[in-house]
Amino acid sequence: MPEQEFDVTPFDVEGAVNYDSLVDKFGTEEIDEELKNRFFEIAGDENLYVKRDFVYSHRGLDNALDEYEEGEGFFLYTGIGPSGKMHIGHIISFYFTRWIQEKFDVNIYIQVTDDEKYWDRDITDEEIDKYAEDNIREIAAVGFDPDKTFIFRNREYMGNMYDGIVKIAEKINNSQAQSVFGFEGSTSIGMNFWPAIQNIPTFFEEKRCVIPAAIDQDPYWRIQRDIAGKFGHKKTAAIHSKFIPALTGPEGKMSSSKPKTAIMLDDSPEQVEEKVKKQAFSGGGDTLEEHKEEGADLSVDTSFQWLRSLLLEDDEELNRIAEQYSSGEMMTGEIKEILIEELNRFLEAHQERKENVDQKVEKMMYEGYLAREMWEKNIDLELKR
Amino acid sequence: MPEQEFDVTPFDVEGAVNYDSLVDKFGTEEIDEELKNRFFEIAGDENLYVKRDFVYSHRGLDNALDEYEEGEGFFLYTGIGPSGKMHIGHIISFYFTRWIQEKFDVNIYIQVTDDEKYWDRDITDEEIDKYAEDNIREIAAVGFDPDKTFIFRNREYMGNMYDGIVKIAEKINNSQAQSVFGFEGSTSIGMNFWPAIQNIPTFFEEKRCVIPAAIDQDPYWRIQRDIAGKFGHKKTAAIHSKFIPALTGPEGKMSSSKPKTAIMLDDSPEQVEEKVKKQAFSGGGDTLEEHKEEGADLSVDTSFQWLRSLLLEDDEELNRIAEQYSSGEMMTGEIKEILIEELNRFLEAHQERKENVDQKVEKMMYEGYLAREMWEKNIDLELKR
Repeated sequence: MPEQEFDVTPFDVEGAVNYDSLVDKFGTEEIDEELKNRFFEIAGDENLYVKRDFVYSHRGLDNALDEYEEGEGFFLYTGIGPSGKMHIGHIISFYFTRWIQEKFDVNIYIQVTDDEKYWDRDITDEEIDKYAEDNIREIAAVGFDPDKTFIFRNREYMGNMYDGIVKIAEKINNSQAQSVFGFEGSTSIGMNFWPAIQNIPTFFEEKRCVIPAAIDQDPYWRIQRDIAGKFGHKKTAAIHSKFIPALTGPEGKMSSSKPKTAIMLDDSPEQVEEKVKKQAFSGGGDTLEEHKEEGADLSVDTSFQWLRSLLLEDDEELNRIAEQYSSGEMMTGEIKEILIEELNRFLEAHQERKENVDQKVEKMMYEGYLAREMWEKNIDLELKR
Repeated sequence: MPEQEFDVTPFDVEGAVNYDSLVDKFGTEEIDEELKNRFFEIAGDENLYVKRDFVYSHRGLDNALDEYEEGEGFFLYTGIGPSGKMHIGHIISFYFTRWIQEKFDVNIYIQVTDDEKYWDRDITDEEIDKYAEDNIREIAAVGFDPDKTFIFRNREYMGNMYDGIVKIAEKINNSQAQSVFGFEGSTSIGMNFWPAIQNIPTFFEEKRCVIPAAIDQDPYWRIQRDIAGKFGHKKTAAIHSKFIPALTGPEGKMSSSKPKTAIMLDDSPEQVEEKVKKQAFSGGGDTLEEHKEEGADLSVDTSFQWLRSLLLEDDEELNRIAEQYSSGEMMTGEIKEILIEELNRFLEAHQERKENVDQKVEKMMYEGYLAREMWEKNIDLELKR
């Protein structure tokens, strides 16, 4: 298969992606076997996404692990833009983040960008409010430690972090923001200011900040790495995932605004079944004969890729499926059934936790140990001259 | 005298100024005799600065007066950038604002831009804090109504106004900000965001906002006039003053960073005397003979201009001085003595009020009627679609 064209800028991801070349392009490092083993060893456990190379690249994860072992530790930062309901692609990143919290017992800060989404999209206040509330419930349902997790809406928390944002904003000029984010003359001055707001949580603690995110987010953090030292802070580390292929195939990403491409977190078992059966892109042969003869192309088959990257913990079972499906022994219908079952198992557990999440939301936003600490804090930065 | 070149951009004013051409350039209106009389009549009093045409131009003052007479009223907005100690040029504008408050019984909002000055100048946090505290005391000493005046520091009040700022920032793009404020690639994203923060107080009330400011500030408000309607608000009105000539002559403005050019609010009587005697630019003849023969050029004489525009209420006395000085009968030394006396009378009264201003500061910032109302308020804007 010839290499396809691809284009990865922070705001849009299209086309099939060569992940090795992204590592080269952005200057990140692959998570090699040595680092993987070290990561798992310190965690005392393996992680599915890392094991299967869905999480595959990093910056400074080795430093963060050093600092963890030396007792200094690190903290996690991630976020959500409340512009729609969340799909399985969104939540996987939070499950990975929770795994790190669980194994390393660290604080997590989750920024709900109800300002940036207002600037970035044609969306009303009412929609932002609705999605912010819903997204926060989805995230809380992931099961973070309610005393070590702070979920905050920018508009609500701004009073506590504006002093620090003023300092950061002074260190970023329009040209830098433009070159990193692609801002233009027609960009609102709100969006243009966004890098300062996005950066502030990386300075919430003295420790190193670790950001789990898709690889396309990496360029965003160039500015943080440039300015962190000026405030006596560490450059943020990052752990990068690949993109989850759309249900409809390996081109592009899942999107809430294209329902065919995504499994939504509130899809019913029946909806999941229908979507997978109708939409899941198959790497199988076009005809029964062709399939029996040539087998399936696993690299483009959504069912196999989702099972491998996101859902199926059991290595032996995965290998069995890979062998049988690629050899033509297993039919597309069969692997789709396995995917439907795994997806529904995952969603059912998640949805049940979401049902009972009110108290956790309250703790992560206002009443938990970390949240109370953060609401009493004024975030300011001091320039090291 | 040939017309000198002059250049008035929001951030810098240099050279001798043709005030009529500024009215043309900015598209404002002169305060003509009719409007002046109406203003005074409704106020029930005359105002020195307006009477002497030091305050000489406006936008929408007639609308504000209409709305006042119809019972709707208006409110005042002004501000200070805490980057230095204040001089007499700074405080005159506040005395004019107080006069309007006194005569029209309206609310005043005073924005202390401890964010913008951090972005605009090479200044430390400690300096900003020191100057903000001092400037606020100077302003409170002017004698505003403590229950109808809200003085707020942006960094402190941001939590209460960020929702509205988000809305404004979405309506201003980089090109607009650049064309109005002259921002460039090297401008910090903080400064670039400034128009949104500067605009929010114009939306603090439903009534029309009236901004008393020097004429060079007029272009700043073009953006407000463009976007106000989108939020169902009125375009701000403005009342423009000329620049107070520097002590050293009619070129440029007084500046705290050029001590020779300015009378500082905390200058002692001896300092005032020394500065005026040494620095005040004289329009008198170069020699005694020349002066006796040709008299003084009042238009460039700082002593006369200051007395006329800012200090001397008595018309007859001013006319006597004009006649005697322009005819050569009065010497530069004599008019300087009059200026010294008037300046010291003004400063002594101001300084005495500043000594006893603590309680007023507390009221204007936190405890007065309007301040309490503002601290309980969340400023948000609703888009009228």
